[in-house]
Amino acid sequence: MKRRDFIKKAALTAGILSFNPPAIHARKRFKARMVTTWPPNFPVIGEGANLLARWIEEMSGGRLRIRVYGGGELVPPLEAFDAVSQGLVEMGHGASYYWAGKVPAAQFFAAVPFGMNAQQMNAWIYRGGGLELWEEVYRPFNLIPMPAGNTGVQMGGWFNKEIRSVSDLKGLKMRIPGLGGKVISKAGGAAILSPGGEIYTNLERGVIDATEWVGPYHDYLMGFYKIAKYYYYPGWHEPGTVLELFINRNFYQSLPKDLQEIIRTAAYRANLWMLSEFESKNNTYLKKLVDEHNVKLKRFPEDVLKTFKRYTKEVIEELVSRDPLSRKVYLSFQGFKKDVSQWARISEMAYYSLP
Amino acid sequence: MKRRDFIKKAALTAGILSFNPPAIHARKRFKARMVTTWPPNFPVIGEGANLLARWIEEMSGGRLRIRVYGGGELVPPLEAFDAVSQGLVEMGHGASYYWAGKVPAAQFFAAVPFGMNAQQMNAWIYRGGGLELWEEVYRPFNLIPMPAGNTGVQMGGWFNKEIRSVSDLKGLKMRIPGLGGKVISKAGGAAILSPGGEIYTNLERGVIDATEWVGPYHDYLMGFYKIAKYYYYPGWHEPGTVLELFINRNFYQSLPKDLQEIIRTAAYRANLWMLSEFESKNNTYLKKLVDEHNVKLKRFPEDVLKTFKRYTKEVIEELVSRDPLSRKVYLSFQGFKKDVSQWARISEMAYYSLP
Repeated sequence: MKRRDFIKKAALTAGILSFNPPAIHARKRFKARMVTTWPPNFPVIGEGANLLARWIEEMSGGRLRIRVYGGGELVPPLEAFDAVSQGLVEMGHGASYYWAGKVPAAQFFAAVPFGMNAQQMNAWIYRGGGLELWEEVYRPFNLIPMPAGNTGVQMGGWFNKEIRSVSDLKGLKMRIPGLGGKVISKAGGAAILSPGGEIYTNLERGVIDATEWVGPYHDYLMGFYKIAKYYYYPGWHEPGTVLELFINRNFYQSLPKDLQEIIRTAAYRANLWMLSEFESKNNTYLKKLVDEHNVKLKRFPEDVLKTFKRYTKEVIEELVSRDPLSRKVYLSFQGFKKDVSQWARISEMAYYSLP
Repeated sequence: MKRRDFIKKAALTAGILSFNPPAIHARKRFKARMVTTWPPNFPVIGEGANLLARWIEEMSGGRLRIRVYGGGELVPPLEAFDAVSQGLVEMGHGASYYWAGKVPAAQFFAAVPFGMNAQQMNAWIYRGGGLELWEEVYRPFNLIPMPAGNTGVQMGGWFNKEIRSVSDLKGLKMRIPGLGGKVISKAGGAAILSPGGEIYTNLERGVIDATEWVGPYHDYLMGFYKIAKYYYYPGWHEPGTVLELFINRNFYQSLPKDLQEIIRTAAYRANLWMLSEFESKNNTYLKKLVDEHNVKLKRFPEDVLKTFKRYTKEVIEELVSRDPLSRKVYLSFQGFKKDVSQWARISEMAYYSLP
């Protein structure tokens, strides 16, 4: 008996030899760190990032273990992009508009005021050419992006002053980031950035007059209903914010094909899980806010929304006129939105207007 | 050297022994057959079932191979449920309202006229208690169900006669299955069942006056625009049909934990992939229908929709009054819908009514 044959036979006897040699290479174990832009265990989103790591570990039979870090635990929240880009850590979970200062075109993959909602963003990204553009935008940073969560339509924010017309925005100090913030500034307000932990105190002390946050569930947990008079809708500035998983390209490419596919599929699950959890929890907590805390819901007046929309166009035109990559992404985004809106008119919109 | 030690050493030398004994059990290979209720490679849905199988195979490194069969290739489409239930095959892909004759409560997990749309169905099933009820309903049949696709809002159908009022439905012969068909019958029409392959000819020859099918993409492929005068919206009878993966319980439980989790996660991906593909393709083909084939889009008149809604209530009340399990599922369904509609009013609906 040749030595090789003996090994094979012995191993078979012990029941430990795979009959598929290529699969054996996949047995190597990997560890990864996932830094996030969220507070540790942040409801829905941080919880979803934890689940994403758990699903990957379970599907891989423990061959890919991921440790999730809240923002600031390993690197500050807004340094997650650089940390993964440089390979200091392997993965990150965040939202692409956080990187607008570095890569302006990135924000189209998170949220655009008066842009697309969750269902439309998914259709554009997965099946309308969006993901390929996103990969192109992140390629120079050695990163591979994928959708991994969605907030759904957000709320318009908490105000201590009623907004009856555009003139009520003059001098209004509002905590609102991103393109939405630029729109508020154009309308005569002051867009102020403050970290999540400081918003409540700032609003209570009058340092700011208004703030947006997320939706009924998160806003309830922040306690804004105790100190703000009006709760405005809709979240014109964030109609379906996509959350992202971004992976260091070298790390991703070092993984066997099965683990790559496991990550990609787990990200789809995280996307759908978070949106479903948001819908379910927002539903429950909206009821609490209205029934138990007498929160007054108000819709922004039509002429205020029209003004926001006009300024949004200006803000985007300024952006795409100075950044060719932003223009390229925006053309795809806007083209898809234009057509899908026609379809939405006779599908989703018609559904919502059923008797 | 003991025999066991020798085997271990020999195996290590050859580089084939895993260093993680528990994982070794997971190395067993499995084969499964997935029967479906769709024609082979049926656009979006059949394609999605093929992808589902491919993702599972890739994620498992080839340890779980699934062969997908179109309806009739192995068992007739409407015998898929029984075939998997009895363990003749391991898995099936379909829609739970096909099993209404056998298990009436099943249809609430697919589509209910004037029910919930895709986003709301996902929220109810994944995060609102729906899946647990679905598992309860399928338990006596030795089946484990999970969502694995969604059509989004469907279209109302093709008509050779304009529907101006409820009286236009009297005597109307329409191909429409399920609860929607019962509603049409109550309205004085005749709900007729015909297999997909016969609808075109039946409509052309006047055997039927109208038919619903899916949405712009599938309806375009069927060529209905060549022979029907009016294309009605919205699909009040199917506002977000959930497609399902159902697995023989014994087979599922024979799988190691990692493969179970791989199947579950792949089903989430199939769910989101199909909905995104539907949104993207319907969008493109709606444009073709209207721009290239001059299809006339018509909204059902408000009083017709109100009548459909009244009859839907009656049909559901008849169903839940004779089947306690249907009542239990319906109470959960309807309770979730009631609350989520309040949230939709200030989120999705408000989004769609933005200027």
